[in-house]
Amino acid sequence: MIVIIKQNTENKKIEKLVKKFEDMGLSCHHSTGAHTTILGIIGDTSRVDIDAVRANDIVEDVKRVSEPYKAVNRKFQPEDTVVRVPSKDGGDVCLGGGYFSVIAGPCSVECEEQIVSVARDVKKSGATMLRGGAFKPRTSPYSFQGLHAEGLELLLTAKQETGLPIVSEIMDLSNIELFRDVDVIQVGARNMQNFAMLKALGHCGKPVLLKRGLANTIEEFLMSAEYIMAGGNAQVILCERGIRTFETITRNTLDISAVPVLHHQSHLPVIVDPSHAAGLTWLVEPLSRASIAAGADGLMIEVHNNPSAALSDGAQSLTPAQFDSVMDKVKAQLLFEGKRF
Amino acid sequence: MIVIIKQNTENKKIEKLVKKFEDMGLSCHHSTGAHTTILGIIGDTSRVDIDAVRANDIVEDVKRVSEPYKAVNRKFQPEDTVVRVPSKDGGDVCLGGGYFSVIAGPCSVECEEQIVSVARDVKKSGATMLRGGAFKPRTSPYSFQGLHAEGLELLLTAKQETGLPIVSEIMDLSNIELFRDVDVIQVGARNMQNFAMLKALGHCGKPVLLKRGLANTIEEFLMSAEYIMAGGNAQVILCERGIRTFETITRNTLDISAVPVLHHQSHLPVIVDPSHAAGLTWLVEPLSRASIAAGADGLMIEVHNNPSAALSDGAQSLTPAQFDSVMDKVKAQLLFEGKRF
Amino acid sequence: MIVIIKQNTENKKIEKLVKKFEDMGLSCHHSTGAHTTILGIIGDTSRVDIDAVRANDIVEDVKRVSEPYKAVNRKFQPEDTVVRVPSKDGGDVCLGGGYFSVIAGPCSVECEEQIVSVARDVKKSGATMLRGGAFKPRTSPYSFQGLHAEGLELLLTAKQETGLPIVSEIMDLSNIELFRDVDVIQVGARNMQNFAMLKALGHCGKPVLLKRGLANTIEEFLMSAEYIMAGGNAQVILCERGIRTFETITRNTLDISAVPVLHHQSHLPVIVDPSHAAGLTWLVEPLSRASIAAGADGLMIEVHNNPSAALSDGAQSLTPAQFDSVMDKVKAQLLFEGKRF
Amino acid sequence: MIVIIKQNTENKKIEKLVKKFEDMGLSCHHSTGAHTTILGIIGDTSRVDIDAVRANDIVEDVKRVSEPYKAVNRKFQPEDTVVRVPSKDGGDVCLGGGYFSVIAGPCSVECEEQIVSVARDVKKSGATMLRGGAFKPRTSPYSFQGLHAEGLELLLTAKQETGLPIVSEIMDLSNIELFRDVDVIQVGARNMQNFAMLKALGHCGKPVLLKRGLANTIEEFLMSAEYIMAGGNAQVILCERGIRTFETITRNTLDISAVPVLHHQSHLPVIVDPSHAAGLTWLVEPLSRASIAAGADGLMIEVHNNPSAALSDGAQSLTPAQFDSVMDKVKAQLLFEGKRF
Repeated sequence: MIVIIKQNTENKKIEKLVKKFEDMGLSCHHSTGAHTTILGIIGDTSRVDIDAVRANDIVEDVKRVSEPYKAVNRKFQPEDTVVRVPSKDGGDVCLGGGYFSVIAGPCSVECEEQIVSVARDVKKSGATMLRGGAFKPRTSPYSFQGLHAEGLELLLTAKQETGLPIVSEIMDLSNIELFRDVDVIQVGARNMQNFAMLKALGHCGKPVLLKRGLANTIEEFLMSAEYIMAGGNAQVILCERGIRTFETITRNTLDISAVPVLHHQSHLPVIVDPSHAAGLTWLVEPLSRASIAAGADGLMIEVHNNPSAALSDGAQSLTPAQFDSVMDKVKAQLLFEGKRF
Repeated sequence: MIVIIKQNTENKKIEKLVKKFEDMGLSCHHSTGAHTTILGIIGDTSRVDIDAVRANDIVEDVKRVSEPYKAVNRKFQPEDTVVRVPSKDGGDVCLGGGYFSVIAGPCSVECEEQIVSVARDVKKSGATMLRGGAFKPRTSPYSFQGLHAEGLELLLTAKQETGLPIVSEIMDLSNIELFRDVDVIQVGARNMQNFAMLKALGHCGKPVLLKRGLANTIEEFLMSAEYIMAGGNAQVILCERGIRTFETITRNTLDISAVPVLHHQSHLPVIVDPSHAAGLTWLVEPLSRASIAAGADGLMIEVHNNPSAALSDGAQSLTPAQFDSVMDKVKAQLLFEGKRF
Repeated sequence: MIVIIKQNTENKKIEKLVKKFEDMGLSCHHSTGAHTTILGIIGDTSRVDIDAVRANDIVEDVKRVSEPYKAVNRKFQPEDTVVRVPSKDGGDVCLGGGYFSVIAGPCSVECEEQIVSVARDVKKSGATMLRGGAFKPRTSPYSFQGLHAEGLELLLTAKQETGLPIVSEIMDLSNIELFRDVDVIQVGARNMQNFAMLKALGHCGKPVLLKRGLANTIEEFLMSAEYIMAGGNAQVILCERGIRTFETITRNTLDISAVPVLHHQSHLPVIVDPSHAAGLTWLVEPLSRASIAAGADGLMIEVHNNPSAALSDGAQSLTPAQFDSVMDKVKAQLLFEGKRF
Repeated sequence: MIVIIKQNTENKKIEKLVKKFEDMGLSCHHSTGAHTTILGIIGDTSRVDIDAVRANDIVEDVKRVSEPYKAVNRKFQPEDTVVRVPSKDGGDVCLGGGYFSVIAGPCSVECEEQIVSVARDVKKSGATMLRGGAFKPRTSPYSFQGLHAEGLELLLTAKQETGLPIVSEIMDLSNIELFRDVDVIQVGARNMQNFAMLKALGHCGKPVLLKRGLANTIEEFLMSAEYIMAGGNAQVILCERGIRTFETITRNTLDISAVPVLHHQSHLPVIVDPSHAAGLTWLVEPLSRASIAAGADGLMIEVHNNPSAALSDGAQSLTPAQFDSVMDKVKAQLLFEGKRF
């Protein structure tokens, strides 16, 4: 941590600040020039509150040198984390460390026929997990909000029928009991900094799929994953799903660089959701392929048996036939890349 | 709602779509040109799912003509809403409709001495409500997270001592019982689209102070207020607190235009939080004054008795003496503007 | 300047880098911890290429401590610059150091009748300079591009008739001769980093009104002003005109904090263009008043005698009557603020 | 074009507006509901000034239905444009329509030894064109600004030595004569809306490489290409190079979706500059591969023989050895994709 001292500060005040750092077990090196004095703070600074230091009268600015996250940091665990989701078929579905997985399914679970039929179709095309929303975060209170407990029941039926592990989004901690048999719990973009929820999921004993917030930096994203790992749960999947920019043709802007940057900073698996990133079905194929080329460990794709009748997000859902065609390209590229799928 | 049809679409398919709208009680006008067919959908379209329409094979694009919000819309209630917070002193503290209010206090409640002393100081300078966080949304799991139930107790002590109504942030619905005696419940920027929480607050029987999310549009902000009003609670205060942009000198970019735009679109009172918007104490005064000039109905300002020892957000907290000086300018300007304060 | 060295770097390599800095006349202080070595570089680092340092094998990161601008920096000139525009009426029109000015006029000069009539109207309402575009930066090659030399002639006629100094935008250096009799040369947002133009204007001997680019940071804005001052021209007016964000109701987002931040970092006068910032006539008044409250030294407002027939940007132009009403409020507030106008 | 009329507007006024459109040769369809009247304007609306319509008293809002660009629009030319750059070796270097090209070289030309050596190295690794800056857009007036005419001379020497066609950036129209022997003229991101320059390049008789501005939408990018094509020059290469967002680890955010979106909207070739997009050498490989997978027609990569001594942008330059390793992966992937290279 580097502390830049205001011009013309009395030495006595600087010494007082240095003493504070030393009392915290840190050591402190001075660099004094004609116009500037800089303090280099050495030691474990992850518990120093950068805002409190900045609030000091004599401090011009403070800059962190080391990352504020530890458990998720690749510096402290160089090898990739492999997230393993137990599957009814026997073997686990794996993500990370060379393993690739495709999660597919409708935005919302609507009825048994729909979810079972989509589950069968996506399995046939090669999906390894089934997604489906039972609790839907909708901008408008007048839009369809999901089937809630009944939706989770229908997902379990589809799991029974196909053997696919299921992924579903939790929107409120009070419902956590309902997720007992869900295989992967998803935290949506809008809840990426719902810290009460992140803490609770640190003890849930299941893999957590954490989506990046619409306007969150990569560092904040990793800090949210740190919340889950700090609670003892190391099975975290990071999901890039597009950030908000001034561009309007696409719903969001897929931050493709986030894939290699997250792999560089962290050992956790990284997947991409091209459906939400683009909001346009014809972009799902090129963005899926770009994600694989950038090193992603998986994809999450919306598929609906009848998009124009979908109760939510129809515009970005592929039909099962379109998904099958995307998967042909995906599989060819995974073979080329040598990923285990 | 306007539906733009893809070029060279068969008439039969268009008619089928028109039929769908008519079945929903809407009427439908065609405009057919050489290259484009446009459908104008007339009637109450607030329950039409724009995504489902867009997912239709023959649809190129869909545009809304009227706002998707109703209860918060000034078109349906031209006169200003006045939010009234009962005060121990007798009269209510009011916001909106010409009434102005200043909410001040520390980011976090830390101990009795701190919160009571700050409460007395801000009251003396003219604050009409006391803020203080008991549950703190912190980016890092290793930062101070607030005193929780004890923090709310201490706030109530400060209310007892000063008569100031209190405002505090809720972070998880499971704690709602603890907020029984809190006068105004605050929803933080990170929870602006925590729809489960918004729904619950629609029934809480208290004023709700709703902060705009870091990367949310004004329309989304109003849709979140609509969630609360749709539940029957009309006492909603909108708070602009800065949005995320590429600029780095300020922590966020205060969207000053949001004040007149929100007043234009909605009847709800609008306040500004210059402390979080800027993240720099020396910007609190000019941004407070700019907010009043733009028509704000109130301010929310961080004040701490010892900012450099604060357990959170010290860098943006004023000392009581600095706050007193800001309030001198604020009061002079409110007088000039003819606001009731 | 602070240089953070990669973990486990050999001492020999660090010494080589230190030697490089010392050869440039800078001194270099080490801080070595268990995991990090930090170099504090002391001296005039404004000519050190931060990118070249960062490209060094052993360098993890580099951070600037002092601002990269000098001539525009308030640290090196604490007193406000007053820009003085000679006026036919005798006295100068001044901006900065307590002087306030209002620049008004149409987006484009269209014909003699229009520009002379608007000039007379805005003068009557209190404008102190006349704006009008002869070269128009239009997104579409098929839109009206301005009257060019003829437009400048018409502006001069209006100046003759009213005595108002004139402000007009230059779009290409090859036209600089045509601006001989223009009083203030404007550099538009899209040319804020047209460095060839900035250099040339450093020698033009006239005040330059520099608009902030749509997506430029405050530091970049000041670096562009530095280009002009580095050429010997100290008469630079900074103009905030809104930045690009995700918000769509307003054309741009007025960065009101830029006003006090620019005043804090620089001694140059700062004005605001509420017409372009908002793109909506009904926002011109509240944004003008907010700008004054935030400390602006002037305003630039679009006025057209017949906005709906305007050849460009009609949607954001006030009628002369609307401008008169805005000016009533502006004058009252300037009186309250004690500005010289 | 769709015009939404304000509530409670008199019929007479609407008829007057309709008459205006009809006088321009357009036809006009009404849709009148309880609360809204909508006009659908049919015909060639590309010359209608949307701002002038919006400025009309009775108009609530205006929305375009068809794209404002024509020459660059795929709707009017379905087949891909192939840009052909004549090469000394005989055959042309091609981009678009299945042809792929790699442009490599240093940010700035510094001396003969440097540019010739880099040119030989990148040619050996497979580059098909040489880039090098003679005029450098630098944020600071105190940074190295390029060798100007001498830099172009040195580029020509390198072309002589290697046969590689050369690409260099023009910063001011007054220098256009110096670009006589440059094969492809580059317009930098900061000049994307320098309309005077775009117009002049419409007549230059050479391929133009147009970079997307840091904060420009895809529509604005295509409008700038339209300026060049409107002047008669159909040899335009579009280059995505990252946009500005709130993320700070990467210098810019590569908008990978822009590649398929530009191909969908336009017939022009699209290349990617991963060096500027990321600003970090270790991201060049994954972003290059992602770009190919997304359908790019070429890459533009910075290579320097000694990045830490580079006079500009060293931090993002690959060494020739690193570039060779990136090209191994690029070539393997192009083979897999079946691109002609």
